[in-house]
Amino acid sequence: MGRGSVSKPLKVALLGAGVVGSQVARIILNEPDTLEQRIGRRLELVGIGVRNLDVPREGIDPALLTTDLDGLVSRGDLDVVVELIGGIEPAHALVQTAIEHGASVVTANKALLADELGPLSRAAQEKGVDLYYEAAVAGAIPIIRPLRESLVGDEITEVMGIVNGTTNYILDKMVTDHLSFDAALAEAQALGYAEADPTADVEGHDAAAKAAILAGLAFHTEVTRDEVFCEGITGITEAEIAAADQLGCTVKLLATAKLTSDAGSVIVKVHPAMVSRKHPLAAVSGARNAIFVNSREAGELMFVGAGAGGAPTASAVMGDVVTVARNRRRGTAGHVGAAYTHRPVAPIGESTAQFYVSFEVVDRPGVLARCAAVFGSHGVSLRVVQQSYLDDESSAEEHPARLGIMTHATQEARLSQVLSELREADFVGSQVRMMRVEGF
Amino acid sequence: MGRGSVSKPLKVALLGAGVVGSQVARIILNEPDTLEQRIGRRLELVGIGVRNLDVPREGIDPALLTTDLDGLVSRGDLDVVVELIGGIEPAHALVQTAIEHGASVVTANKALLADELGPLSRAAQEKGVDLYYEAAVAGAIPIIRPLRESLVGDEITEVMGIVNGTTNYILDKMVTDHLSFDAALAEAQALGYAEADPTADVEGHDAAAKAAILAGLAFHTEVTRDEVFCEGITGITEAEIAAADQLGCTVKLLATAKLTSDAGSVIVKVHPAMVSRKHPLAAVSGARNAIFVNSREAGELMFVGAGAGGAPTASAVMGDVVTVARNRRRGTAGHVGAAYTHRPVAPIGESTAQFYVSFEVVDRPGVLARCAAVFGSHGVSLRVVQQSYLDDESSAEEHPARLGIMTHATQEARLSQVLSELREADFVGSQVRMMRVEGF
Repeated sequence: MGRGSVSKPLKVALLGAGVVGSQVARIILNEPDTLEQRIGRRLELVGIGVRNLDVPREGIDPALLTTDLDGLVSRGDLDVVVELIGGIEPAHALVQTAIEHGASVVTANKALLADELGPLSRAAQEKGVDLYYEAAVAGAIPIIRPLRESLVGDEITEVMGIVNGTTNYILDKMVTDHLSFDAALAEAQALGYAEADPTADVEGHDAAAKAAILAGLAFHTEVTRDEVFCEGITGITEAEIAAADQLGCTVKLLATAKLTSDAGSVIVKVHPAMVSRKHPLAAVSGARNAIFVNSREAGELMFVGAGAGGAPTASAVMGDVVTVARNRRRGTAGHVGAAYTHRPVAPIGESTAQFYVSFEVVDRPGVLARCAAVFGSHGVSLRVVQQSYLDDESSAEEHPARLGIMTHATQEARLSQVLSELREADFVGSQVRMMRVEGF
Repeated sequence: MGRGSVSKPLKVALLGAGVVGSQVARIILNEPDTLEQRIGRRLELVGIGVRNLDVPREGIDPALLTTDLDGLVSRGDLDVVVELIGGIEPAHALVQTAIEHGASVVTANKALLADELGPLSRAAQEKGVDLYYEAAVAGAIPIIRPLRESLVGDEITEVMGIVNGTTNYILDKMVTDHLSFDAALAEAQALGYAEADPTADVEGHDAAAKAAILAGLAFHTEVTRDEVFCEGITGITEAEIAAADQLGCTVKLLATAKLTSDAGSVIVKVHPAMVSRKHPLAAVSGARNAIFVNSREAGELMFVGAGAGGAPTASAVMGDVVTVARNRRRGTAGHVGAAYTHRPVAPIGESTAQFYVSFEVVDRPGVLARCAAVFGSHGVSLRVVQQSYLDDESSAEEHPARLGIMTHATQEARLSQVLSELREADFVGSQVRMMRVEGF
């Protein structure tokens, strides 16, 4: 079966030996025979680029380690470079150098791809090398390959997912244990599920990078991170969580990429949403990820699994390494699924959704009618109105009430006009909050 | 983007123009520009092999139709043959001829692949052509490609799924509407979800073919349909459905492929099972399919979507057609992921599971202890014992009772010994029924 074959091994270099990198190194070093059977050629790990040589790394020959990452990727004899250091620089320059020197690249770097997928894909295609990145979105869940290949004969209309485990854990805690955002975040940090600086997760930036990658792949176009509409979960109130529950919904941070109805542009957005418990994404709890795909012919598909963690991410990376190595062995590569349409990202105002709007009013006769009139004057029709009285001591004729209004589907631009008008109305007695609704 | 390019188009022949074939023809004929963008070369549908020329086929030029299928696949200039006629012969001979004449093959034919995947893969590999079959298992759900590529750097330990929509619909009706099997089948037939002769579905043969394909792919070995342990849903009683419900379970027809603990052989089986409502497969209702994959590094993954139907199946077929055509354009093909291990299928007796055993007893003092002793003497320990009295008029000391016993996990061979002994015991007053349990 090729064992003991005289053909030269394929040379792999690894950049980064952190949580994922050390697992990838372990698999390559410990499973040479299995990998050879699957690839048809032996894999040789020729070097591991690290920042610090002094960290003890069990099971890894120190002679493999180098701090000269640029020297490693410019050797000129590499078949595959696996980039697992993350961040934009020096990862970007190293990947470019690897491609220029004829190596195929496997990366899990969502931040890099969200900015540079287009240019890197074109560079790889020109050099005839592969660029694979299954691990960059939703960890071990195979989503890149299905979008790039399985559904390539179909027309995808929407990709929607829970792609950030940290925020999903925090929202779960808020819904299930009735914690405030701050308390849930503190718990997630104590357990190591959230970082000391949680900004990238809780403000939605991490999910937005993944949304950009998914949108580009699904719609054969180029979308960068800064084009993604992005709203985090920090402002969510306990009142909104309770209202969602009353309406049979839970709250999730969703990343959505959607073709507009004329298929001419795309909506790409990350925001918290009230998700009906009837929707399959509502049941995806804890640190799991899930991606929901809607396409013209295949209908609804859903993919669920571990969205992060060393071993799951390493599984996705190794799937790419084996595929790229097989292509290399057969002397074929460079089909990187580059974008061929130019669908611009539409402004969020063109997005259509249902909305949940909540605020306090002074409960005078006629106030509800005046609220409804604000929605009506902008052509937004109401689906559910919740009214609850607050515990304040007030006079009988002027006690404050909390209104929660769910609209029918409408354009976000119209809803913005409603919100502006409500914010200036004299009968509105608090901040006006809005949350998007899915699957209701 | 290559529109108006002078490079020769890729020639495609289609075998079959039924529910799926007509949809595939429609996509190829109606979307030439989109397909050309995705493939990098134009696709030309050169012929459609059918049984009967007289059937009216909207939107298809009659000049494309032929009843000489053998002549069509032996033209010698075909790039891709799409086989959608189903069944073993003549599909088998036609696919072989297509491969011999240098065409890559896309097929949705699970019956053929369950018997001949190994030999056909080897033939394709020898000829340097592709053999793709995403649509053969679970319709539009991308499962073949994830198993063949995404998880190829990992070690899959188990694949378990609901892969037959007809039986899933019938079982749903039995659970939700408390129908008998016969009544639920009649309803499924009336709605067109079950065929007039439902044998292939309700006896599990269709699921067994898919289990053979999944097992071979997941464990890099060859498994044929007749090696799959197969038990259908026809014998399921309303009492078992009610007992499952009491235990927080539903009943599903599961197809399972599992590596034995020493990874030396595989268990491949199709049978109804009580599935805990906590297990993600329990929520997969109606005609949907779902596949659950467990692997060493990636952990648990689940894929859910439409398991059948013309358009969803056509989506999977077209994904393969585009992939195969891309390979063809680049002059590369023939990596068909042939088996390289030789893991035999272990007898069902070596399978380990929890079991639910039910039967009637004459409720004399000491009978429960005697029942328990039968299990204990074979080393099978009990987890739950349900006892319920029947409505018969009986004397006070000898009224019949129904016992339902769920065991802890044990080898099926041991359970078989328990069943044999119970069937001969004088205190057992009815047929002894057994159902396997999952996720409890």
